[in-house]
Amino acid sequence: MTYTPIGPLFTDLYELTMAAGYHARNMSAEATFSLFVRDCAERNFFVTGGLEDVLRELAMMRFSEDDLAYLESTGLFGTDFLSHLKEMRFTGEVRAMPEGTIFFPDEPILEVTAPIIEAQIVETFLLNTVGFQSLIASKAARCVHAAAGRPLIDFSLRRTQGRDGGLKVARSTYLAGFAATSNVLAGQRYGIPVSGTMAHSFVQTFPEEEAAYVSFAETFPENSVFLIDTYDTVEGARLAARVGKAMRKNGASLKGVRLDSGDMAALSRQVRRILDRAGLSDVQIYASSGFDEFKISEVLAGNAPIDAFGVGTKMGVSADAPYLDIVYKLVRFAGRDVRKLSPGKVTLSGRKQVFRQSNPNGGYRADTIGLADEQLEGCIPLLRTVMSNGEITDSPPSLERIRNRFRKNFSELGEEYKLLDKKKTYPVGISEELQKIQEQ
Amino acid sequence: MTYTPIGPLFTDLYELTMAAGYHARNMSAEATFSLFVRDCAERNFFVTGGLEDVLRELAMMRFSEDDLAYLESTGLFGTDFLSHLKEMRFTGEVRAMPEGTIFFPDEPILEVTAPIIEAQIVETFLLNTVGFQSLIASKAARCVHAAAGRPLIDFSLRRTQGRDGGLKVARSTYLAGFAATSNVLAGQRYGIPVSGTMAHSFVQTFPEEEAAYVSFAETFPENSVFLIDTYDTVEGARLAARVGKAMRKNGASLKGVRLDSGDMAALSRQVRRILDRAGLSDVQIYASSGFDEFKISEVLAGNAPIDAFGVGTKMGVSADAPYLDIVYKLVRFAGRDVRKLSPGKVTLSGRKQVFRQSNPNGGYRADTIGLADEQLEGCIPLLRTVMSNGEITDSPPSLERIRNRFRKNFSELGEEYKLLDKKKTYPVGISEELQKIQEQ
Repeated sequence: MTYTPIGPLFTDLYELTMAAGYHARNMSAEATFSLFVRDCAERNFFVTGGLEDVLRELAMMRFSEDDLAYLESTGLFGTDFLSHLKEMRFTGEVRAMPEGTIFFPDEPILEVTAPIIEAQIVETFLLNTVGFQSLIASKAARCVHAAAGRPLIDFSLRRTQGRDGGLKVARSTYLAGFAATSNVLAGQRYGIPVSGTMAHSFVQTFPEEEAAYVSFAETFPENSVFLIDTYDTVEGARLAARVGKAMRKNGASLKGVRLDSGDMAALSRQVRRILDRAGLSDVQIYASSGFDEFKISEVLAGNAPIDAFGVGTKMGVSADAPYLDIVYKLVRFAGRDVRKLSPGKVTLSGRKQVFRQSNPNGGYRADTIGLADEQLEGCIPLLRTVMSNGEITDSPPSLERIRNRFRKNFSELGEEYKLLDKKKTYPVGISEELQKIQEQ
Repeated sequence: MTYTPIGPLFTDLYELTMAAGYHARNMSAEATFSLFVRDCAERNFFVTGGLEDVLRELAMMRFSEDDLAYLESTGLFGTDFLSHLKEMRFTGEVRAMPEGTIFFPDEPILEVTAPIIEAQIVETFLLNTVGFQSLIASKAARCVHAAAGRPLIDFSLRRTQGRDGGLKVARSTYLAGFAATSNVLAGQRYGIPVSGTMAHSFVQTFPEEEAAYVSFAETFPENSVFLIDTYDTVEGARLAARVGKAMRKNGASLKGVRLDSGDMAALSRQVRRILDRAGLSDVQIYASSGFDEFKISEVLAGNAPIDAFGVGTKMGVSADAPYLDIVYKLVRFAGRDVRKLSPGKVTLSGRKQVFRQSNPNGGYRADTIGLADEQLEGCIPLLRTVMSNGEITDSPPSLERIRNRFRKNFSELGEEYKLLDKKKTYPVGISEELQKIQEQ
């Protein structure tokens, strides 16, 4: 996959005015910023996403002539500062949890150490990229868990918040265990399996519903999923069964039918019966329309015989929690640990590490936030150096590898944290060393 | 502004499998699809956005060699269909409400009439583009109304749902009356005024808060807004006032101070008093942190002396209603009006027009959805032909012109529909002619 940088103007103006302020005073000392998520009432755990984009963007960061001309046109910046930007590259260090890692509130998931101007300017991009992709991966993980092994397909593209949103949702959901996406561009860019067959409009272009099915089956003898609710779902199921039987006689095979409205639990049972009586017990029932982790969980609790779900809008915008309270805070500057005391927004100073402890028989037990150079016995440090002197130190792993990492990670997380509507706080402590620094 | 097309693979796979189905049967008749928003409990009105992107994308639509190679690699499509896609351009007609138009549930805001394959393939792009930009313009209009004339600045970039989300939020909020954005790239691309000065990190890089202010003022003698809550807001205000007085002596001028945490109503009054006593009554108070239309309305109801608001995350993802239930439905095919009867998802068949009636003394009275070729006396038709034979019939208006249109539109909307937490349904009727078609 080729990466197209969005460029350093993807930033808040204040990053650049601050940079001009630092530049005017020759402040070029090293700063460390810590990126973390504050508590979210609707989530017991989060899943990291976005690191690949972060590394590729930072590695390619430079101001173009057009960028500089625009900045000059604002009248805010002097020639000397603009010349500095022209030559500037990102030369810092990034330590981060790999994508697909489970994390909790207040844990740093990424730390940047770089000359203050470089570290400052990338703030907005980092927050946007890591925040959004982690938001969706976290939501998707809940859906996957609720589906208890049934495949999920990302159907969200039409209602995601913009183009990039649609692409990143496809990637983030696949990372968290979705089986496929309807998003063709994401299929091309990320190699994610694509899925989809027909909408209501296809059925409507034929004078008779059955003719639409017959016609579609001729074009896709092995890959047809008939949408059966355009007029009446039960009648649609009967027609689909008739066409499915005919297909079998011709050596073809109906893959499934899809329900897209009405009482999913009741309808899926009726449709299953119709299909089974027609000898089509291998024809799967897909369901879509308004699914998220809550609705999936509800219909499955009622034993609805649904084999796969199309999960769209509510997942694609993380409707119950449409943003993470993600922040990027200065924790160390010019060899001095710093912190902020604004009410409700106090931060932990110092370069940090997150240490994860497991139970002897497997399963996560607790995390400790400590100092970057600490070593805590029996714990695994989660932040790794992924960029050094502005260069990526390891090629980013493939999406499949990230997906496998997440799956393993998730199997280690206690079931009590996976419950959808119960707030359960995973134990995250602070090391003695880190505590000492705060008190100074 | 140059437009970069996202390309026709930005679509759901089923659009292409349906297209292959139409192609296999030589179905090339004209179809009309109608794009509209279903009712939303949290909104009394909506504002159109996204049309400029729609027109530019459709005018440039073509499958590249890479696109076709990817589609071939899926194994789903035959050579004949892929050749058809290779030559395909969008040759249809688009009728739409201009950007910045106020609209209501069930009203078609855009209709496409084109050969079925072309009209089908663009569905996902149209829904995503018009849906998201209208979502944000609608949310932003509420914020602007709540601020009652005080300028608003879009601060959302760090937490929008992806890159494109951030850019489109800046454009959509400006369209709806925001004064500026912190988003530098949006400033460059759309010519929107940019705004921003300092974050907490700037203050923290100095051993003393006051030194940070002094330093910043040296770099930006006319464009400094000091952030005063890093340690203690009231103390920060005193320091800012001292520096502001010194600036004045030097012929400079402090623009403002910014509050970013705590009890905004109480703090803004204390800070105003401190500034006024220092003779700095022209120094403005900016407020940010968690603002949306509700919080703006609340602090202003308490007479908080806040002059301008930075409005971020909750607006940038439309947190109280993070998606529109926007759909694109086949309403006419091959000379036949069609409709869908799925429970809760019934659509109005036929090519349509929306007619708006005003009161004699100004102000919108009621809308009527009718047939495209009807004329209703005393009403203004809202859908205009903006693309014909695949070509844009009018250059899209400038963003300033759209912004002015919205402002005028909004002044015609009754105050009862602008209330934030009261559901009030604007009267939208159906013409006799349109009703007749439904009953056939």
